Amino acid sequence: MDERAALALLEGELEPVGDDAAVVDGLVVTTDMLHERTDFPAGTTRYTAGWRSVAASLSDVAAMGADATAAVAAYAAPEFVEEELLAFVRGATDVCELVDAEYVGGDLDGHDEFTVATTAIGHTDDPVPRSGARPGDRVCVTGTLGRSGAALRYFDRAADGDQAALERANALFQFEPRVAAGSALAPHASAMMDSSDGLARSLHQLGEASGCGFAVDADPIPIDDAVRAVTDTDDEALEVGTTFGEDFELVVTIPDAELEAAREATDVPLSVIGSVVDAEEGITLDGTRLEDRGYTHGEGT
Amino acid sequence: MDERAALALLEGELEPVGDDAAVVDGLVVTTDMLHERTDFPAGTTRYTAGWRSVAASLSDVAAMGADATAAVAAYAAPEFVEEELLAFVRGATDVCELVDAEYVGGDLDGHDEFTVATTAIGHTDDPVPRSGARPGDRVCVTGTLGRSGAALRYFDRAADGDQAALERANALFQFEPRVAAGSALAPHASAMMDSSDGLARSLHQLGEASGCGFAVDADPIPIDDAVRAVTDTDDEALEVGTTFGEDFELVVTIPDAELEAAREATDVPLSVIGSVVDAEEGITLDGTRLEDRGYTHGEGT
Repeated sequence: MDERAALALLEGELEPVGDDAAVVDGLVVTTDMLHERTDFPAGTTRYTAGWRSVAASLSDVAAMGADATAAVAAYAAPEFVEEELLAFVRGATDVCELVDAEYVGGDLDGHDEFTVATTAIGHTDDPVPRSGARPGDRVCVTGTLGRSGAALRYFDRAADGDQAALERANALFQFEPRVAAGSALAPHASAMMDSSDGLARSLHQLGEASGCGFAVDADPIPIDDAVRAVTDTDDEALEVGTTFGEDFELVVTIPDAELEAAREATDVPLSVIGSVVDAEEGITLDGTRLEDRGYTHGEGT
Repeated sequence: MDERAALALLEGELEPVGDDAAVVDGLVVTTDMLHERTDFPAGTTRYTAGWRSVAASLSDVAAMGADATAAVAAYAAPEFVEEELLAFVRGATDVCELVDAEYVGGDLDGHDEFTVATTAIGHTDDPVPRSGARPGDRVCVTGTLGRSGAALRYFDRAADGDQAALERANALFQFEPRVAAGSALAPHASAMMDSSDGLARSLHQLGEASGCGFAVDADPIPIDDAVRAVTDTDDEALEVGTTFGEDFELVVTIPDAELEAAREATDVPLSVIGSVVDAEEGITLDGTRLEDRGYTHGEGT
């Protein structure tokens, strides 16, 4: 079984089905495990690793429309180097502060490969599921897409000793979890998830959960400038922006009547990229079927 | 740095200092990572692994005197086998049900070595720290000690094909987290932690946090019958019972005036094994210095 098949299997066993985080009596819980080989390219600083691994879990809290309360991390490595550990903790602490959560430490563990397991905890009395999108709703994306895809190109350049590329790559990897935007959009949203598997896959997952299709236009998709800087053509930039994933923006459906209120609720740019349609119409980009391609965690792109 | 030095380093950076779990506004959070090579001996079923890994985190919640709310696990393995995954989830679910917590799933991840990261969440308005023990208090232990040490001997026997030993080992590895006992004892306790690093190391950690010593008697230490069954002498049994660790009983200090009320508060056997003394008197077993030996997680015994 691959990871998606295994997750589908577990969905038969466990509640809740397929949302970004579990919700128990208003308590929102989500956990992730990241590994050096698959998730932290050579050149990723421990500060970036601390930031990014905790941020990935905070993004799942955001995707439920919840406030973030706290995060923990279990840090496993072949050896414990003081400087690395402190940098990791500072990265984790800084991203928690950014979203008003508390980083409360965690566990340390000897292990062959640098591995991090993070858990974020939040709270909401009114979680936004993946299953609420209805035909006619608009589909929107926060921020910009493709930063992580661009970061990987910079990490590649950094491998040849380009120090500026290394700094750029790490900066792009330190993303802001959309916790404030998520809770601000929640009262207006019909469905929400994060784009950690890429926009294309996110739309397929929302479509499956809500029983709907999407008609998306390429033009308003907010491709990050960093992507344009490392790609040669618009088509290549669009490909990175829609399928690379690991971006942790919110993909959210909003009834037309709520759109203005939603825009006013948050300072984060909200791009309307298309509309929810009937399931029979499928998921299309500029009228052409958008394939279910993207990032499967732990298996690379 | 070894793990304890690294933890000490982090304690300078992070609150809270050295308790079994972090507490943020009454929310109790704790996380652990376990690996096949160091934590799951050959013969450990995935049901046992699910049970035990989640139980280890629930035990940390119990050690704060908190109720357990929920648990999650990130499951990483080289491949996802349906039977193994379902067994893992059933073990995790069963131990959560045992302590009135909800198992809410988690993350799946491809990884060379079977690795599990668990997080348990609880709640208490009045956490019991490690730092409250005062000279004159009695030091007590719940349940019995040495079950995991005995389990390892059975796993060794099972390696030669002994099916009964394999079942016995797995049963011993499925321990009951002392959540109910922990919250029942909390109002009467001055300090508490779990015995996951062994009784000897737990006493040293309590002593360090509280600034006290302990005078412990060997005779009342509740060595599990399973230990006696796999050891040849009383001394060997005592050694396994006091230093092996991975037992997840509660080590708790209770003022003399509270002792009867504490006993009545829980059905779990509570053994008084000695008294809290001044720090200058050190930590002694039958009048002889008890060394700080035990299990350091991730590094084996």
